[in-house]
Amino acid sequence: MIFELNKSKEILERTPEVLETLLSGLSKEWVENNEGAKTWSPYDIVGHLISGEKTDWIIRIKTILSDSESKLFEPFDRFAQLNENQNRPIEDLINEFKLLRKKNLNELKFLNISQKDFEKVGIHPEFGNVTLKQLISTWAVHDLGHIAQITRVMAKQYTKEVGPWISYLGVLKK
Amino acid sequence: MIFELNKSKEILERTPEVLETLLSGLSKEWVENNEGAKTWSPYDIVGHLISGEKTDWIIRIKTILSDSESKLFEPFDRFAQLNENQNRPIEDLINEFKLLRKKNLNELKFLNISQKDFEKVGIHPEFGNVTLKQLISTWAVHDLGHIAQITRVMAKQYTKEVGPWISYLGVLKK
Repeated sequence: MIFELNKSKEILERTPEVLETLLSGLSKEWVENNEGAKTWSPYDIVGHLISGEKTDWIIRIKTILSDSESKLFEPFDRFAQLNENQNRPIEDLINEFKLLRKKNLNELKFLNISQKDFEKVGIHPEFGNVTLKQLISTWAVHDLGHIAQITRVMAKQYTKEVGPWISYLGVLKK
Repeated sequence: MIFELNKSKEILERTPEVLETLLSGLSKEWVENNEGAKTWSPYDIVGHLISGEKTDWIIRIKTILSDSESKLFEPFDRFAQLNENQNRPIEDLINEFKLLRKKNLNELKFLNISQKDFEKVGIHPEFGNVTLKQLISTWAVHDLGHIAQITRVMAKQYTKEVGPWISYLGVLKK
Protein backbone atom coordinates (compact mmCIF):
# COMPACT_ATOMS: atom_id res chain seq x y z
CA MET A 1 0.00 0.00 0.00
CA ILE A 2 1.34 3.36 -1.07
CA PHE A 3 1.25 6.37 1.24
CA GLU A 4 -1.64 8.79 0.77
CA LEU A 5 -2.43 11.67 3.09
CA ASN A 6 -6.16 10.95 3.04
CA LYS A 7 -5.69 7.27 3.82
CA SER A 8 -3.40 8.17 6.70
CA LYS A 9 -5.97 10.61 8.03
CA GLU A 10 -8.62 7.87 7.95
CA ILE A 11 -6.60 6.12 10.67
CA LEU A 12 -5.56 9.22 12.63
CA GLU A 13 -9.12 10.54 12.79
CA ARG A 14 -10.66 7.41 14.21
CA THR A 15 -8.13 6.40 16.86
CA PRO A 16 -9.62 8.52 19.69
CA GLU A 17 -13.06 7.02 19.14
CA VAL A 18 -11.63 3.50 18.91
CA LEU A 19 -9.94 4.03 22.30
CA GLU A 20 -13.15 5.42 23.72
CA THR A 21 -15.26 2.43 22.66
CA LEU A 22 -12.51 0.04 23.77
CA LEU A 23 -11.67 1.52 27.20
CA SER A 24 -14.38 3.86 28.53
CA GLY A 25 -16.32 2.43 31.43
CA LEU A 26 -14.16 -0.69 31.82
CA SER A 27 -13.24 -2.12 35.22
CA LYS A 28 -9.98 -0.75 36.59
CA GLU A 29 -8.13 -4.07 36.20
CA TRP A 30 -8.60 -4.10 32.42
CA VAL A 31 -7.31 -0.54 32.16
CA GLU A 32 -4.55 -0.43 34.77
CA ASN A 33 -2.94 -3.86 34.72
CA ASN A 34 0.15 -4.36 32.56
CA GLU A 35 2.25 -7.24 31.22
CA GLY A 36 4.73 -7.25 34.12
CA ALA A 37 7.50 -5.05 35.51
CA LYS A 38 8.44 -2.07 33.31
CA THR A 39 5.63 -2.67 30.84
CA TRP A 40 2.73 -0.37 30.10
CA SER A 41 -0.94 -0.63 30.98
CA PRO A 42 -3.64 0.62 28.58
CA TYR A 43 -3.76 3.68 30.89
CA ASP A 44 -0.03 4.34 30.35
CA ILE A 45 -0.38 3.86 26.60
CA VAL A 46 -3.15 6.48 26.33
CA GLY A 47 -0.87 8.83 28.32
CA HIS A 48 1.91 8.14 25.81
CA LEU A 49 -0.41 8.95 22.90
CA ILE A 50 -1.27 12.26 24.60
CA SER A 51 2.46 13.11 24.90
CA GLY A 52 2.90 12.41 21.22
CA GLU A 53 0.14 14.88 20.34
CA LYS A 54 1.65 17.52 22.63
CA THR A 55 5.33 17.22 21.82
CA ASP A 56 6.00 15.14 18.74
CA TRP A 57 4.01 14.59 15.53
CA ILE A 58 2.58 17.94 14.48
CA ILE A 59 5.64 19.80 15.76
CA ARG A 60 7.93 17.66 13.63
CA ILE A 61 5.66 18.11 10.62
CA LYS A 62 5.91 21.87 11.04
CA THR A 63 9.69 21.63 11.43
CA ILE A 64 9.93 19.86 8.07
CA LEU A 65 7.68 22.42 6.37
CA SER A 66 9.21 25.49 8.00
CA ASP A 67 11.65 27.90 6.37
CA SER A 68 14.01 27.64 9.31
CA GLU A 69 17.60 26.55 8.80
CA SER A 70 17.51 23.81 11.41
CA LYS A 71 15.38 20.82 10.61
CA LEU A 72 16.60 18.84 13.61
CA PHE A 73 13.77 17.26 15.65
CA GLU A 74 13.70 17.46 19.45
CA PRO A 75 14.08 13.98 20.93
CA PHE A 76 10.70 12.55 22.00
CA ASP A 77 10.41 11.46 25.64
CA ARG A 78 8.69 8.10 25.37
CA PHE A 79 8.25 7.84 29.13
CA ALA A 80 6.82 11.31 29.88
CA GLN A 81 3.39 9.87 30.74
CA LEU A 82 4.86 7.95 33.69
CA ASN A 83 5.48 11.29 35.44
CA GLU A 84 1.92 12.53 34.95
CA ASN A 85 -0.89 12.47 37.51
CA GLN A 86 -1.96 8.81 37.69
CA ASN A 87 -5.26 9.56 39.42
CA ARG A 88 -7.23 10.97 36.52
CA PRO A 89 -9.90 8.59 35.21
CA ILE A 90 -9.10 6.98 31.86
CA GLU A 91 -12.14 8.76 30.38
CA ASP A 92 -10.42 12.12 31.09
CA LEU A 93 -7.27 11.01 29.33
CA ILE A 94 -9.22 9.77 26.33
CA ASN A 95 -11.06 13.05 26.15
CA GLU A 96 -7.80 15.01 26.29
CA PHE A 97 -6.36 12.82 23.54
CA LYS A 98 -9.49 13.33 21.44
CA LEU A 99 -9.26 17.13 21.72
CA LEU A 100 -5.52 17.23 21.01
CA ARG A 101 -5.82 14.94 18.00
CA LYS A 102 -8.67 17.02 16.60
CA LYS A 103 -6.67 20.22 17.03
CA ASN A 104 -3.59 18.65 15.43
CA LEU A 105 -5.49 17.26 12.44
CA ASN A 106 -7.02 20.67 12.00
CA GLU A 107 -3.55 22.23 11.97
CA LEU A 108 -2.45 19.59 9.47
CA LYS A 109 -5.30 20.59 7.19
CA PHE A 110 -4.33 24.27 7.30
CA LEU A 111 -0.75 23.45 6.38
CA ASN A 112 -2.11 22.78 2.87
CA ILE A 113 0.43 20.09 2.20
CA SER A 114 1.08 19.47 -1.50
CA GLN A 115 2.34 16.34 -3.22
CA LYS A 116 5.90 17.64 -3.51
CA ASP A 117 6.02 18.45 0.22
CA PHE A 118 5.89 14.76 1.08
CA GLU A 119 9.53 14.30 0.08
CA LYS A 120 10.77 17.20 2.22
CA VAL A 121 13.04 16.13 5.03
CA GLY A 122 13.69 16.71 8.70
CA ILE A 123 16.56 15.39 10.77
CA HIS A 124 15.70 12.70 13.28
CA PRO A 125 18.09 12.63 16.27
CA GLU A 126 18.82 8.95 15.67
CA PHE A 127 17.99 8.19 12.01
CA GLY A 128 19.12 11.39 10.31
CA ASN A 129 17.11 12.37 7.23
CA VAL A 130 13.45 11.34 7.25
CA THR A 131 10.72 12.52 4.89
CA LEU A 132 7.36 14.08 5.69
CA LYS A 133 5.74 11.05 4.08
CA GLN A 134 7.57 8.71 6.43
CA LEU A 135 6.64 10.84 9.43
CA ILE A 136 2.91 10.87 8.66
CA SER A 137 2.94 7.14 7.84
CA THR A 138 4.65 6.49 11.19
CA TRP A 139 2.06 8.58 13.02
CA ALA A 140 -0.71 6.32 11.67
CA VAL A 141 1.20 3.06 12.23
CA HIS A 142 2.08 4.22 15.77
CA ASP A 143 -1.66 4.55 16.52
CA LEU A 144 -2.42 1.08 15.16
CA GLY A 145 0.52 -0.48 16.98
CA HIS A 146 -0.64 0.93 20.29
CA ILE A 147 -4.22 -0.28 19.77
CA ALA A 148 -2.74 -3.73 19.12
CA GLN A 149 -0.63 -3.39 22.28
CA ILE A 150 -3.61 -2.29 24.42
CA THR A 151 -5.72 -5.27 23.36
CA ARG A 152 -2.77 -7.65 23.86
CA VAL A 153 -2.17 -6.31 27.39
CA MET A 154 -5.88 -6.72 28.15
CA ALA A 155 -5.97 -10.25 26.71
CA LYS A 156 -3.02 -11.28 28.90
CA GLN A 157 -4.94 -10.50 32.08
CA TYR A 158 -6.86 -13.74 31.43
CA THR A 159 -3.84 -15.88 30.52
CA LYS A 160 -4.43 -18.28 33.40
CA GLU A 161 -8.20 -18.27 33.00
CA VAL A 162 -8.35 -19.67 29.46
CA GLY A 163 -6.85 -23.02 30.52
CA PRO A 164 -5.80 -25.27 27.60
CA TRP A 165 -7.07 -22.77 24.99
CA ILE A 166 -3.82 -20.86 25.53
CA SER A 167 -2.34 -23.00 22.74
CA TYR A 168 -4.77 -21.48 20.18
CA LEU A 169 -4.40 -17.89 21.40
CA GLY A 170 -1.29 -16.42 19.79
CA VAL A 171 -1.95 -13.05 21.42
CA LEU A 172 -1.04 -14.54 24.82
CA LYS A 173 2.41 -15.59 23.64
CA LYS A 174 3.67 -12.25 22.30
CA MET B 1 -6.83 -11.13 37.07
CA ILE B 2 -9.44 -13.61 38.18
CA PHE B 3 -12.35 -14.59 35.93
CA GLU B 4 -15.63 -12.81 36.53
CA LEU B 5 -18.66 -13.08 34.28
CA ASN B 6 -19.35 -9.35 34.41
CA LYS B 7 -15.78 -8.41 33.56
CA SER B 8 -15.86 -10.84 30.63
CA LYS B 9 -19.10 -9.31 29.42
CA GLU B 10 -17.53 -5.85 29.52
CA ILE B 11 -15.24 -7.03 26.71
CA LEU B 12 -17.78 -9.09 24.79
CA GLU B 13 -20.32 -6.27 24.75
CA ARG B 14 -18.01 -3.65 23.30
CA THR B 15 -16.21 -5.61 20.57
CA PRO B 16 -18.81 -4.95 17.83
CA GLU B 17 -18.67 -1.21 18.44
CA VAL B 18 -14.87 -1.25 18.56
CA LEU B 19 -14.84 -2.95 15.14
CA GLU B 20 -17.35 -0.44 13.84
CA THR B 21 -15.30 2.58 14.90
CA LEU B 22 -12.11 0.93 13.67
CA LEU B 23 -13.27 -0.34 10.26
CA SER B 24 -16.47 1.35 9.04
CA GLY B 25 -15.93 3.72 6.16
CA LEU B 26 -12.25 2.88 5.66
CA SER B 27 -10.67 2.62 2.21
CA LYS B 28 -10.78 -0.88 0.77
CA GLU B 29 -7.02 -1.40 1.06
CA TRP B 30 -7.05 -1.02 4.85
CA VAL B 31 -9.88 -3.52 5.13
CA GLU B 32 -9.05 -6.08 2.44
CA ASN B 33 -5.26 -6.32 2.39
CA ASN B 34 -3.62 -9.06 4.47
CA GLU B 35 -0.11 -9.97 5.68
CA GLY B 36 0.71 -12.23 2.73
CA ALA B 37 -0.34 -15.60 1.29
CA LYS B 38 -2.72 -17.59 3.52
CA THR B 39 -3.11 -14.80 6.06
CA TRP B 40 -6.30 -12.96 6.93
CA SER B 41 -7.42 -9.45 6.14
CA PRO B 42 -9.52 -7.44 8.63
CA TYR B 43 -12.48 -8.42 6.38
CA ASP B 44 -11.69 -12.13 6.82
CA ILE B 45 -11.28 -11.70 10.59
CA VAL B 46 -14.72 -10.10 10.97
CA GLY B 47 -16.13 -13.04 8.97
CA HIS B 48 -14.39 -15.42 11.38
CA LEU B 49 -15.92 -13.60 14.37
CA ILE B 50 -19.36 -14.00 12.75
CA SER B 51 -18.80 -17.77 12.37
CA GLY B 52 -17.89 -17.98 16.03
CA GLU B 53 -21.17 -16.35 17.02
CA LYS B 54 -23.13 -18.67 14.74
CA THR B 55 -21.49 -22.01 15.45
CA ASP B 56 -19.23 -21.92 18.47
CA TRP B 57 -19.36 -19.93 21.73
CA ILE B 58 -22.96 -19.83 22.89
CA ILE B 59 -23.60 -23.34 21.56
CA ARG B 60 -20.72 -24.73 23.58
CA ILE B 61 -21.88 -22.81 26.66
CA LYS B 62 -25.30 -24.43 26.29
CA THR B 63 -23.70 -27.85 25.80
CA ILE B 64 -21.88 -27.48 29.11
CA LEU B 65 -25.02 -26.37 30.94
CA SER B 66 -27.38 -28.88 29.33
CA ASP B 67 -28.67 -32.06 30.93
CA SER B 68 -27.64 -34.10 27.91
CA GLU B 69 -25.28 -37.05 28.31
CA SER B 70 -22.86 -35.92 25.65
CA LYS B 71 -20.83 -32.86 26.44
CA LEU B 72 -18.63 -33.22 23.37
CA PHE B 73 -18.26 -29.97 21.39
CA GLU B 74 -18.56 -29.92 17.60
CA PRO B 75 -15.22 -28.96 16.02
CA PHE B 76 -15.17 -25.29 15.02
CA ASP B 77 -14.36 -24.53 11.38
CA ARG B 78 -11.86 -21.71 11.63
CA PHE B 79 -11.88 -21.15 7.89
CA ALA B 80 -15.65 -21.06 7.24
CA GLN B 81 -15.60 -17.34 6.45
CA LEU B 82 -13.35 -17.94 3.42
CA ASN B 83 -16.27 -19.69 1.70
CA GLU B 84 -18.72 -16.87 2.31
CA ASN B 85 -19.75 -14.19 -0.17
CA GLN B 86 -16.77 -11.84 -0.38
CA ASN B 87 -18.72 -9.02 -2.00
CA ARG B 88 -20.66 -7.76 0.99
CA PRO B 89 -19.41 -4.44 2.32
CA ILE B 90 -17.53 -4.64 5.61
CA GLU B 91 -20.25 -2.49 7.21
CA ASP B 92 -22.78 -5.31 6.52
CA LEU B 93 -20.53 -7.86 8.17
CA ILE B 94 -20.01 -5.65 11.21
CA ASN B 95 -23.74 -5.15 11.48
CA GLU B 96 -24.36 -8.89 11.30
CA PHE B 97 -21.72 -9.48 13.96
CA LYS B 98 -23.28 -6.80 16.15
CA LEU B 99 -26.75 -8.40 15.95
CA LEU B 100 -25.44 -11.92 16.56
CA ARG B 101 -23.36 -10.86 19.53
CA LYS B 102 -26.28 -9.00 21.04
CA LYS B 103 -28.54 -12.03 20.63
CA ASN B 104 -25.91 -14.35 22.11
CA LEU B 105 -25.23 -12.11 25.12
CA ASN B 106 -28.95 -11.95 25.67
CA GLU B 107 -29.13 -15.75 25.63
CA LEU B 108 -26.21 -15.86 28.05
CA LYS B 109 -28.12 -13.61 30.42
CA PHE B 110 -31.19 -15.85 30.35
CA LEU B 111 -29.08 -18.91 31.17
CA ASN B 112 -28.87 -17.45 34.70
CA ILE B 113 -25.42 -18.86 35.25
CA SER B 114 -24.50 -19.28 38.91
CA GLN B 115 -21.08 -19.34 40.55
CA LYS B 116 -20.98 -23.13 40.76
CA ASP B 117 -21.80 -23.49 37.05
CA PHE B 118 -18.43 -21.98 36.13
CA GLU B 119 -16.63 -25.22 37.02
CA LYS B 120 -18.94 -27.40 34.90
CA VAL B 121 -17.19 -29.08 32.00
CA GLY B 122 -17.59 -29.81 28.34
CA ILE B 123 -15.36 -31.95 26.16
CA HIS B 124 -13.25 -30.12 23.62
CA PRO B 125 -12.39 -32.27 20.56
CA GLU B 126 -8.68 -31.62 21.08
CA PHE B 127 -8.18 -30.62 24.74
CA GLY B 128 -10.69 -32.88 26.47
CA ASN B 129 -12.25 -31.42 29.64
CA VAL B 130 -12.64 -27.64 29.69
CA THR B 131 -14.68 -25.59 32.14
CA LEU B 132 -17.37 -23.03 31.46
CA LYS B 133 -15.12 -20.42 33.06
CA GLN B 134 -12.32 -21.24 30.61
CA LEU B 135 -14.73 -21.11 27.68
CA ILE B 136 -16.11 -17.66 28.55
CA SER B 137 -12.60 -16.34 29.29
CA THR B 138 -11.47 -17.63 25.91
CA TRP B 139 -14.41 -15.96 24.17
CA ALA B 140 -13.28 -12.57 25.55
CA VAL B 141 -9.56 -13.14 24.88
CA HIS B 142 -10.41 -14.31 21.35
CA ASP B 143 -12.12 -10.94 20.70
CA LEU B 144 -9.13 -8.99 22.01
CA GLY B 145 -6.64 -11.12 20.10
CA HIS B 146 -8.48 -10.50 16.85
CA ILE B 147 -8.65 -6.74 17.43
CA ALA B 148 -4.88 -6.85 17.98
CA GLN B 149 -4.52 -8.88 14.77
CA ILE B 150 -6.68 -6.48 12.74
CA THR B 151 -4.66 -3.43 13.80
CA ARG B 152 -1.39 -5.30 13.18
CA VAL B 153 -2.50 -6.28 9.65
CA MET B 154 -3.50 -2.66 8.98
CA ALA B 155 -0.21 -1.32 10.36
CA LYS B 156 1.77 -3.64 8.08
CA GLN B 157 0.25 -2.08 4.96
CA TYR B 158 2.57 0.90 5.61
CA THR B 159 5.70 -1.15 6.39
CA LYS B 160 7.64 0.33 3.48
CA GLU B 161 6.25 3.82 3.98
CA VAL B 162 7.59 4.40 7.50
CA GLY B 163 11.23 4.26 6.35
CA PRO B 164 13.80 4.05 9.19
CA TRP B 165 11.09 4.28 11.88
CA ILE B 166 10.49 0.58 11.30
CA SER B 167 13.08 -0.08 14.00
CA TYR B 168 10.84 1.57 16.64
CA LEU B 169 7.62 -0.07 15.48
CA GLY B 170 7.43 -3.52 17.03
CA VAL B 171 4.01 -4.13 15.49
CA LEU B 172 5.63 -4.35 12.02
CA LYS B 173 7.90 -7.21 13.08
CA LYS B 174 5.30 -9.65 14.44
